Amino acid sequence: MITLLAGFSTAQNKDYKVVFDLTSKDSLNQQSLLHEMKLIKEGNPDAQVEAVIYGQGLGLIRKDLSSQSAEIQDLLSKKDVSIKVCALAMKRQNVDESQLLPGVQVVPDGIYEIISKQRDGWGYIKVAH
Amino acid sequence: MITLLAGFSTAQNKDYKVVFDLTSKDSLNQQSLLHEMKLIKEGNPDAQVEAVIYGQGLGLIRKDLSSQSAEIQDLLSKKDVSIKVCALAMKRQNVDESQLLPGVQVVPDGIYEIISKQRDGWGYIKVAH
Amino acid sequence: MITLLAGFSTAQNKDYKVVFDLTSKDSLNQQSLLHEMKLIKEGNPDAQVEAVIYGQGLGLIRKDLSSQSAEIQDLLSKKDVSIKVCALAMKRQNVDESQLLPGVQVVPDGIYEIISKQRDGWGYIKVAH
Repeated sequence: MITLLAGFSTAQNKDYKVVFDLTSKDSLNQQSLLHEMKLIKEGNPDAQVEAVIYGQGLGLIRKDLSSQSAEIQDLLSKKDVSIKVCALAMKRQNVDESQLLPGVQVVPDGIYEIISKQRDGWGYIKVAH
Repeated sequence: MITLLAGFSTAQNKDYKVVFDLTSKDSLNQQSLLHEMKLIKEGNPDAQVEAVIYGQGLGLIRKDLSSQSAEIQDLLSKKDVSIKVCALAMKRQNVDESQLLPGVQVVPDGIYEIISKQRDGWGYIKVAH
Repeated sequence: MITLLAGFSTAQNKDYKVVFDLTSKDSLNQQSLLHEMKLIKEGNPDAQVEAVIYGQGLGLIRKDLSSQSAEIQDLLSKKDVSIKVCALAMKRQNVDESQLLPGVQVVPDGIYEIISKQRDGWGYIKVAH
């Protein structure tokens, strides 16, 4: 119990920039992604955190399918947090921009978005277990 | 239907270099890898795209096991596309070079191949869902 | 048989630095991680190899749950090999430092550890299949 109540003692890390890659429909992966993003921002308010969603991950950010919309709205209300979805994956899966949760951004190519961030010095984390 | 027929409007991205990491025998992962490689080359003919296969992924590029040989031949006929397999994984799984689909290259150490590409500024994508 | 007996012919690679990301409780993933770390050190004694464990991966390095403790002890006896576990994940899962296998190090934030290594030029491999 003591450990649970102890809170977060991590000092804020400098230059925390990370892009997450989600292609999973697995709810544990999807929840882990949101949980990690939240924890990072709690411990490091200046962190820049982005998730790129493509492949099987689109359910997380679809109005009709997401079980995490409240969590996502809360995350996206913070500065320097973004969730981006791949237009190629949307096209293939017949998903329209109107079907996305508010605040989710569309990028032309999810993989290019990820590797551009890597090239700009952002860390990369694949969400999978 | 309209979105399906609309084709790809993405302008070609500069300096598109990406190495994919496949260790999965899951057919969805294997098909996703080939699909992503194909899409990237369609949208960006000058892109450099490489897949490194090790671990449980070897079935994808074995003559006797692959269900994707036509797709792979088509991909490998394009410039700046390569599929490489780890010699250590082949050794461990008793796979001989003669068992590989034509055009698949053997590298001594798949992980070293991946991290060398990362060091050279290539983006990295783990294929998993 | 000949291939099995042939041993490792890979010449040592220069500047082999790699951080592995494990969030999986899957035993195949956990064994693959240890196997890859071992192979790298056998072929490249000067390699720097680190694993960062968080999420669902903690069982691998818990005294009460790990089926790989002998393998881990052997790995950690080598120079430039480390296994680090995320304190945030330990806190969340009520795991105390006394429950960890000897030699496993605690880091305040596993994801920050990984992206710091990436920024320092280490290669990154997500363990998943």
